[in-house]
Amino acid sequence: MGATIEQSLEIIRRGTSEILPEETLISRLKESRPLRVKAGFDPTAPDLHLGHTVLLNKLRQFQELGHEAMFLIGDFTGMIGDPTGKNITRKPLSREDVLENARSYQEQIFKILDPDRTQIVFNSSWMNKLSPADLISIASKHTVARMLEREDFSNRYKSGQPIAIHEFLYPLIQGYDSVVMKADVELGGTDQKFNLLVGRHLQEIYGQPPQVILTMPILEGLDGVQKMSKSLGNYIAIADAPDEMFGKLMSISDELMWRYMELLSFKSSSEITQLKKACAEGENPRKVKVMFAHEIVGRFHGRNIADKAIENFEARFKRGLIPEDLMETDWLSDSENYGLSALLKDLGLTSSTSESNRAIQQGAVKVDGVKIEDQRLKLSVGASYILQVGKRKLAKVNLLLAKS
Amino acid sequence: MGATIEQSLEIIRRGTSEILPEETLISRLKESRPLRVKAGFDPTAPDLHLGHTVLLNKLRQFQELGHEAMFLIGDFTGMIGDPTGKNITRKPLSREDVLENARSYQEQIFKILDPDRTQIVFNSSWMNKLSPADLISIASKHTVARMLEREDFSNRYKSGQPIAIHEFLYPLIQGYDSVVMKADVELGGTDQKFNLLVGRHLQEIYGQPPQVILTMPILEGLDGVQKMSKSLGNYIAIADAPDEMFGKLMSISDELMWRYMELLSFKSSSEITQLKKACAEGENPRKVKVMFAHEIVGRFHGRNIADKAIENFEARFKRGLIPEDLMETDWLSDSENYGLSALLKDLGLTSSTSESNRAIQQGAVKVDGVKIEDQRLKLSVGASYILQVGKRKLAKVNLLLAKS
Repeated sequence: MGATIEQSLEIIRRGTSEILPEETLISRLKESRPLRVKAGFDPTAPDLHLGHTVLLNKLRQFQELGHEAMFLIGDFTGMIGDPTGKNITRKPLSREDVLENARSYQEQIFKILDPDRTQIVFNSSWMNKLSPADLISIASKHTVARMLEREDFSNRYKSGQPIAIHEFLYPLIQGYDSVVMKADVELGGTDQKFNLLVGRHLQEIYGQPPQVILTMPILEGLDGVQKMSKSLGNYIAIADAPDEMFGKLMSISDELMWRYMELLSFKSSSEITQLKKACAEGENPRKVKVMFAHEIVGRFHGRNIADKAIENFEARFKRGLIPEDLMETDWLSDSENYGLSALLKDLGLTSSTSESNRAIQQGAVKVDGVKIEDQRLKLSVGASYILQVGKRKLAKVNLLLAKS
Repeated sequence: MGATIEQSLEIIRRGTSEILPEETLISRLKESRPLRVKAGFDPTAPDLHLGHTVLLNKLRQFQELGHEAMFLIGDFTGMIGDPTGKNITRKPLSREDVLENARSYQEQIFKILDPDRTQIVFNSSWMNKLSPADLISIASKHTVARMLEREDFSNRYKSGQPIAIHEFLYPLIQGYDSVVMKADVELGGTDQKFNLLVGRHLQEIYGQPPQVILTMPILEGLDGVQKMSKSLGNYIAIADAPDEMFGKLMSISDELMWRYMELLSFKSSSEITQLKKACAEGENPRKVKVMFAHEIVGRFHGRNIADKAIENFEARFKRGLIPEDLMETDWLSDSENYGLSALLKDLGLTSSTSESNRAIQQGAVKVDGVKIEDQRLKLSVGASYILQVGKRKLAKVNLLLAKS
C-alpha cells in the first residue's frame, strides 16, 4: 500500500472504460483499508482466454495496491441453465461440472492473481439457502420499466422477441451477490454495466454503501474486429501451447498489438508510451511484438518456455515457413461469409475447391496458424486472415464486403 | 349427478361472464367424474361479504352437480405482503393471522358450501417448499411481453407508474397453484381473467390438460355503481347482524335487486323470470325484495331469525321509522364527492354543518341504515343514499354531478 492515491488511481484507470462514481473510489482509497473488489465469472466452460484476463489483470492491479480480490463463481445460475430449454448452448451444469470448471479456473487464475489476496466464492452457497419469499422480496426491489431500459431487453421488447420473466431475475441475483459479498468495487466488461448498476441499487436498498463500478473494454479477437470468443475461433486460450500462443500473438496487426498491450501487458503505461514513441521514430514494431508475445507466453508457461518459443518462432522464419513481410491482399466477397475452400481456390493457393477440401482433409490447411478440419468452414467478412496450405503456400487476405 | 349435460350447463352458465373454452367444459362434464373446481381467496381480511359469495354460490352449484370445490387460501403471498413496503394496506400477515382468518372463513363459507365436497388448501404448503431455482424455473415459463398485456400492468407501464418485478411473479404463482391442484375448472371475478389464463398456460407447459376458466361479474355495492368492498363501505358482510342485513337489502334499488337475485339467490332462473314478469304486470317489487332479503338473511342466520327480521323491519315501518314511499330527491354536486355534514345541512336535515357534526358525534346519523362515525365522510356522486338524522328526519337523495 505504498502508493499514493494519485498513483493508485493512475494504475486503476489504465485501460478502463468507466469508473462510476470516481469520487467514491477516491474516498474509499483514502480509507486506507483493503477494498473488497468483486468480479464474477460464469463457470460455463472450463477454459479461460485472454479476453477474460483483462478483468483478472485489473483485479491483480488492485491486489498489488493492497486490496482483496473477490472471485465470484456464478454457479447458482449456471446450474439452472436456461430453464426455457430454448437455448441449447446453455445447458444446466451439474454440481460436478461446476466443481471441475472451478478447479480448472483456479489453476488458470493463479497465474495472474495472488492467492493470498484472493477469495473464491460460489453464489450457490447463499442463493440456494433463500426461501421463495426471499427471492420474491429481492424481485420487489426493482421495476419492470428500469429493467426494460437495459439495451438488449429494450431491443428485444421493441422487436417482439420474447424475454422470459426469469431473465429479469438474473441481474437482480448478480446484484444481490454484491449485497452478500459487501463489495466495495465491482469489475465487469462494458456489456455488464447495467447489471453492475443493479448491484449498486440493491446495496443501497439493503442499507449498504453502494459499490463503485468499473467497466473494462471487451477485448477484440485476433481478427481485431469481433469480441474474443471461443465460439468465433478468434481467441488465445490461457491453456494454449506456448508455440501456438506465440504464433497467434505474432500474427496480430500492429494496431491491435498496442490495444492488447494496454489491456494485457504488465508493463507500465509510461513504458508502453516510450515503446510507441520509439516505433513512431523508426523502430520496427516487430521487436515490440516479440517482446509482448514473450511476456504473455512467459506469464502462462514460465520464462524459459517463453525464451524457447521465440527460438522456435525464429527457426520457422529461417526455414521460410512464415514470411515476415507477407503482403496483405484485399478481397471482395458478395456475402457476409466466405467458404474457406472457395477462398483458397480463388486466391490461387489451390487449383480447385476439391483440391482445397482434400488439403483440409489431410490437415494441411491453417487459418491464423490454427489447423482447420472442417471443409465447410466459412470465414466472416470484415477481418484479415493468414491462410496457409502445406508449408510453402501462404496468403494474408483482408475480406471485404462488396457493395451491391 | 342426476343432471343431464344440458341441465348442468344451464346451471353453470347462470350469471357467468365467460366460460373459456365452453367445449372443454362440455367434454369434461361428459366424463362423468367429479371435476376439481378451484377458487382462490386472499386471507387478508377475516370477513367475507356478499360480493365474495358470488363465487361461493357458483362453487356450490358445481357441488350440487356432483363436483369437488377446491377452496384455495392464498396465504403464501398473503404472508409476504407487499415487499416493496409501499402499500401499507397490504401488510404481511403472520402465520397466526392467516390461521385465524382461515378459521373465520370456514365458519362463513360452510353456510354456503357443502363441507363433504370441499377441500380447503393453503398454497403456502407447496410454495414454501420450492427452492429458488424452482421459482426461477416457473418464472421462465412466461414472457415479459405477455405479462405486460394485462390491462393494469399495461396502463401503469404506459403512464410511467412503477411495476415492481415481483408483481410479475404473483400471477405465475396463482397459475402454478392450478398445476399443483390439477384444477379442471377455475372460477374468478372478471378482473381475474388474465391470471386464470396464466393458469391454463402453465398447466399446458407442465403437461396437464389446461383448466376451463369461468369468470363471474363483480358484484356492485349497495350504491349499485361501485364494486362491493369493505373500504368503500357499500357492503353487506356475511357476519352482519340479521336486522342490519335485512335493512340494507331492503334499501337497494329495484334494478339492483334483480341483479343481486341473479347472482345471489338460490332460486332457479325460471322462478326469477316469473317474478320479473309478475312485477312487470303490476305486482309490487317490494314483495320480491322482502322475499329475497328473507332468503339471504335465512342463509346466514337461519330461517327463524330471518322471519324475525321481517317482523322487526315491518314494525319499524309501522312506527314510521322508514317510510315506505320515501321520495327520492335529485341533488347536484359540483365535485365527485359530497361531504356528509354539508349535505345534511343542504337538505335541511340539520340547520348547520356544526349541527351535522354534533349529530354524527352523538351517533345519530345513519347512511343506508349504517351508523356513521366519521364527520369527514364524503359520499360519492352518482349513487343514491338514505340519510337519517335521529329517529324522524329522513331523506333519500340521488347525488348527481352538476355539468360545468
